[in-house]
Amino acid sequence: MSQLPEQSARTSVPTSADVARAAGVSRATVSYVLNDNTTVRISDATRRRVREAASGLGYVPHAAARSLRAGHSRMVLLPAAHLPAVPLQQRFFTDLQSDLRRLDYTVVQYGSAGLDADEAVRAWAELRPVAVVAPGGVRLTPQGISVLTRSGAKAVITLGPQPVEGAHALVLDQRGVGAGAVRHLLARGRRRIGVVMPQEAGLALFSEPRLAGALHAAETSATGARIQPLPLRYEESSAAELAARWRALGLDSVFAYDDEYAMLLMRALQDAGVEVPAETAVVGAGDLMLGRLLRPRLSTVRMELATAQPPAEMIDRLVRHPGGAPERHDLLRAETVARESS
Amino acid sequence: MSQLPEQSARTSVPTSADVARAAGVSRATVSYVLNDNTTVRISDATRRRVREAASGLGYVPHAAARSLRAGHSRMVLLPAAHLPAVPLQQRFFTDLQSDLRRLDYTVVQYGSAGLDADEAVRAWAELRPVAVVAPGGVRLTPQGISVLTRSGAKAVITLGPQPVEGAHALVLDQRGVGAGAVRHLLARGRRRIGVVMPQEAGLALFSEPRLAGALHAAETSATGARIQPLPLRYEESSAAELAARWRALGLDSVFAYDDEYAMLLMRALQDAGVEVPAETAVVGAGDLMLGRLLRPRLSTVRMELATAQPPAEMIDRLVRHPGGAPERHDLLRAETVARESS
Repeated sequence: MSQLPEQSARTSVPTSADVARAAGVSRATVSYVLNDNTTVRISDATRRRVREAASGLGYVPHAAARSLRAGHSRMVLLPAAHLPAVPLQQRFFTDLQSDLRRLDYTVVQYGSAGLDADEAVRAWAELRPVAVVAPGGVRLTPQGISVLTRSGAKAVITLGPQPVEGAHALVLDQRGVGAGAVRHLLARGRRRIGVVMPQEAGLALFSEPRLAGALHAAETSATGARIQPLPLRYEESSAAELAARWRALGLDSVFAYDDEYAMLLMRALQDAGVEVPAETAVVGAGDLMLGRLLRPRLSTVRMELATAQPPAEMIDRLVRHPGGAPERHDLLRAETVARESS
Repeated sequence: MSQLPEQSARTSVPTSADVARAAGVSRATVSYVLNDNTTVRISDATRRRVREAASGLGYVPHAAARSLRAGHSRMVLLPAAHLPAVPLQQRFFTDLQSDLRRLDYTVVQYGSAGLDADEAVRAWAELRPVAVVAPGGVRLTPQGISVLTRSGAKAVITLGPQPVEGAHALVLDQRGVGAGAVRHLLARGRRRIGVVMPQEAGLALFSEPRLAGALHAAETSATGARIQPLPLRYEESSAAELAARWRALGLDSVFAYDDEYAMLLMRALQDAGVEVPAETAVVGAGDLMLGRLLRPRLSTVRMELATAQPPAEMIDRLVRHPGGAPERHDLLRAETVARESS
């Protein structure tokens, strides 16, 4: 395409040299004033003149130029996950961004939908982040971690259900969610427990550790309880099919993966004449409002994020003191909320 | 803090000069090969040698250096909204990212939680994006648009319920959602229509145009229908309070903002002995699965995004031919789905 629009835009973008000229000061002075550097004595009048010139010209500093001068960036990269949204994690990310910004980092999210793992890692590395926080669902390999480190990242941290070799890990261990649901059902005297396994892409990352936790809780309970995985799509027809052969399965209870799958399955069971909880107890996870609005009210596993060690401060520490052994911090607490469905 | 970690990281980051040295070629050749530039004749053996050297050294290009050399970036900035997630919009953003990437743009999301509008715009401008797509909830002013343009953005586009003066607009006009619900209720013979107004932060951006659409539909219907706004928090106690004084309100129907508020209010009405739909018809919006699982099944307004003119191509066109008059494209189609609750 024509070079014209680019060139015209280029000459119209004000630089710090333009600000310096307009204010009648040096570029260094412009930099000191606009970065709020107070180690250098500059009069209030000059500071005001520089700020007015910058504002009048519409000047803002160039992050790329600054990071090239510094040889490193203050950019923390959060590769955006192309996963079904997990509200708990979203809230955490929002808080993490605010906390990192307070520590003077620039937080940038980078979508990787449509890229394979290698392409994604290379795209992130091109931005030269000083730290990368990769949420679950982004398949970070030891090789990918090495690409990031060699392009200047001081800290590579995963945030998700499982740690990745060679990276620091903020772990949202899903096993406790499945274990909590099963322990609750065992305490209620249930022994033949179904565990819903969503068939939607991306959810295996959560459903498999939940199933592992359920199996472990049953095995270590010495009750002889049996766990039966139940594949289910998030569709009424899939739930109706499962409900139609429910009695043949011989189950007395089900951990339904989360509150939304629980609502879907409970409706199908009720429509098929299976009584909840008399014939089958149902437990969800997530403690959504909808569970309280169902009849019977839905029992659930509530998840909370620990705040004992603020992760933003951990990231800052890892950036300032890189090279240590991988750290692991468990963030998730699971707690059963017993209502009427179990 | 000590300069040591930064310096050591600096010397360890491989540059294109290192790749050139290892492969025994010029830096220009490295650039041609790694950018897949086929206008220059380079033998397959040399291409292979450069790629192997780059891979062996863990080299990836530096986006900031490249954009400084080019005088502009290929970065499209999506300021991340700190809004309650809207699944429809999330899917759209995922598709938009993939499409822009195919057009060779780098898509970066920037969270602005905790920043005021001016701070946010300056933070975006520092990244020197070539285009900015600001979702609803980010309060873009004409002054903010000017800061972005003067820092090199060729196109500033809003994506949300309302256009902003001076920016191109991808409009998700919410008025049609409220109008569609009300027209459906009028056709069912209802004349005293409540409209739920969520009290949660950020939702006014959606609820106010939905109410405006509802009012307009009632006024232009020549039925003498009355619209009554109903403030509601997303809490059981708030819904119970509203249900307790329902009969005093004298309403025969309600547009409940969306399916989740509809579920909350319908449960409270049923618990208070108000029959749905006989005494009060209820319509939601969003066509969520949960509406189909309620009894009575929930009527709703389904929203769909038009794909007639792919917005990614529009952004590319605006970047290549900047300076035109603000464009406006309506993306949202609203369609009523009648079920049992109305």
